[in-house]
Amino acid sequence: MSVTAAKGFTAAGIAAGIKENGNPDLALVVNTGPRRAAAGVFTSNRVKAAPVLWSEQVLRGGEVSAVVLNSGGANACTGPKGFQDTHATAEKVADVLGHSAGEVAVASTGLIGVLLPMDKLLPGIEQAAAQLSEHGGEKAAIAIKTTDTVHKTAVVQKDGWTVGGMAKGAGMLAPGLATMLVVLTTDADLESAALDTALRDATRQTFDRVDSDGCMSTNDTVLLLASGASGITPGQAEFAEAVRAVCDDLARQLIGDAEGASKDIRIEVVGAATEDDAVEVGRSIARNNLLKCAIHGEDPNWGRVLSAIGTTRAAFEPDQLNVAINGIWVCKNGSVGEDRDLVDMRYREVRITADLAAGSESAVIWANDLTADYVHENSAYSS
Amino acid sequence: MSVTAAKGFTAAGIAAGIKENGNPDLALVVNTGPRRAAAGVFTSNRVKAAPVLWSEQVLRGGEVSAVVLNSGGANACTGPKGFQDTHATAEKVADVLGHSAGEVAVASTGLIGVLLPMDKLLPGIEQAAAQLSEHGGEKAAIAIKTTDTVHKTAVVQKDGWTVGGMAKGAGMLAPGLATMLVVLTTDADLESAALDTALRDATRQTFDRVDSDGCMSTNDTVLLLASGASGITPGQAEFAEAVRAVCDDLARQLIGDAEGASKDIRIEVVGAATEDDAVEVGRSIARNNLLKCAIHGEDPNWGRVLSAIGTTRAAFEPDQLNVAINGIWVCKNGSVGEDRDLVDMRYREVRITADLAAGSESAVIWANDLTADYVHENSAYSS
Repeated sequence: MSVTAAKGFTAAGIAAGIKENGNPDLALVVNTGPRRAAAGVFTSNRVKAAPVLWSEQVLRGGEVSAVVLNSGGANACTGPKGFQDTHATAEKVADVLGHSAGEVAVASTGLIGVLLPMDKLLPGIEQAAAQLSEHGGEKAAIAIKTTDTVHKTAVVQKDGWTVGGMAKGAGMLAPGLATMLVVLTTDADLESAALDTALRDATRQTFDRVDSDGCMSTNDTVLLLASGASGITPGQAEFAEAVRAVCDDLARQLIGDAEGASKDIRIEVVGAATEDDAVEVGRSIARNNLLKCAIHGEDPNWGRVLSAIGTTRAAFEPDQLNVAINGIWVCKNGSVGEDRDLVDMRYREVRITADLAAGSESAVIWANDLTADYVHENSAYSS
Repeated sequence: MSVTAAKGFTAAGIAAGIKENGNPDLALVVNTGPRRAAAGVFTSNRVKAAPVLWSEQVLRGGEVSAVVLNSGGANACTGPKGFQDTHATAEKVADVLGHSAGEVAVASTGLIGVLLPMDKLLPGIEQAAAQLSEHGGEKAAIAIKTTDTVHKTAVVQKDGWTVGGMAKGAGMLAPGLATMLVVLTTDADLESAALDTALRDATRQTFDRVDSDGCMSTNDTVLLLASGASGITPGQAEFAEAVRAVCDDLARQLIGDAEGASKDIRIEVVGAATEDDAVEVGRSIARNNLLKCAIHGEDPNWGRVLSAIGTTRAAFEPDQLNVAINGIWVCKNGSVGEDRDLVDMRYREVRITADLAAGSESAVIWANDLTADYVHENSAYSS
């Protein structure tokens, strides 16, 4: 279903030869209207890939008629030539579809610092355009995979309208946003401003709270396109909730497929004075390598949780901190709590609850453990 | 030589039985005067171990007559009982030596969240006191090891006066300070204020710029004791330089023995607008797990350096960044530079130079690679 679950969209995914192993590497998503409203959120990394710089410009216009995505190369840190290549890619899509290049968003993912093989990418666009279909969402989702072991899609169907989407991402996963490409589509009849509000709200609470390895990508892109093909204009709150549900689903799929991970860690910070405090503490716990190793070893090492909390600026008193791991309060009032041998950590999901005892705000951050497989996957070859 | 290289100090290191494996675990360092001036720098982690809270109080008095250090338990997150144990430890040392407990600093290292076996520690203090010797520095350095594979000592001898020291630390090594215990001694005849100025200056540029794994300890302690036994009062600049040299030597030894590491990474940030910018960028590079994996794999993956720089607030333009790895400028003006195949990464030391092209300030941060051995060492058992 993916990006073609909503009416008014076609998609395709093909192997253009960008990847040396011959796997699918080029996806095309086209909004067939009647409306072409769009919103986008991009990496907050200050070193931005050429397609991010390009697509940020496109989104300023508020209309996107097509998105072309490639895996097999990030086109990041590639200088003026890289930006020219992105521009040429958008022009090629516009030519083939009879659109304006200024309405074609581009997204790339793969190794940083390498130019894309344009002699393969441009013919690939013609090939993808020829295969555009209302059932092409699945193939598009497959074509944007890099080190992903599975493709990721999600759909929410409401009363006469739909929000669907696809995502890729498995490493360099840290907020602002996670290293990932996401395209969401809807046939709801909404203007770009309404899409933008819903998308920013959703990403702030979903993708921005995923932190697989603390490393922020240069290419993160989340796009939301509306075709208006359902003829229905849902209320903002209902629409925002549907977008958030799809984003939440995709964000969880990203964590579930993180490079080398053996555990998904749900870190819930409660009792915080502010939501910002809760997020800061959650992120500090999520990024603590020693804790990530301990979780991998199924060791409920709560001392490493406290040492991570202690590095933040959040409001708390050290002797009032409480920590539960999988429901067992192993740390109470900053000291030894229930018997750590009661903690059962055999399953993939591990739940850490950190109670700051400083207020009533909370936040959930999702993270992964740190494993020898992660080291291997990120040291044995360039990615 | 260690802490007894300077005149006016005795030390001992013994096995008190705190460690279950029977290795040495208790060290005592005594200032025999005539002066007992002292300065200390402690972890900036807000979750501080009981011995840190105690020793911070002691240092406020400006005089330290003895330091008792144990490995085998951090006495962190141990509540009121943990603090009582630290107090009892200082009282015991004071009793045995005929000093005041208010002048006895305490330092502990090991697992967080476990009470110390006081029935072994207190008799151990008597045993250590009986073995105090002007040649005991080496044994003291051995007794504070935890996962350290070697003990760490350093000495600078000047014209009639000396600065010496010992350090432990191999994991949870990140600034503010690194997870480590350091005791420095000098026979220079200086007041506490002069020691404090020299010590803060030295730690800021040495221990605070070591970042093995981004994890800040609850127990970091650096103490500088002056006996005045040389009768010589060096100039502040000369003294500060000697203290910095000893700290620099010990900091390098910490990095060289970091848990599971196969590479020592020297990250030099140049062309920064401010020293703070240089440190922020250096630390961001030092903590990037993907880059640390790439260095382990001897892959000069400069894209990961740029993606780390891009997450900082430092002054720079993305298209003016330059990066060299072991002297080869693999990234020029934010894009592909010299041939990455020219980079020789066979040796343990890897040098990364990041030129922000935004000014003339610089800083050096030392880090380690991320290895499967690190994961194993920190997941296979609690530490």
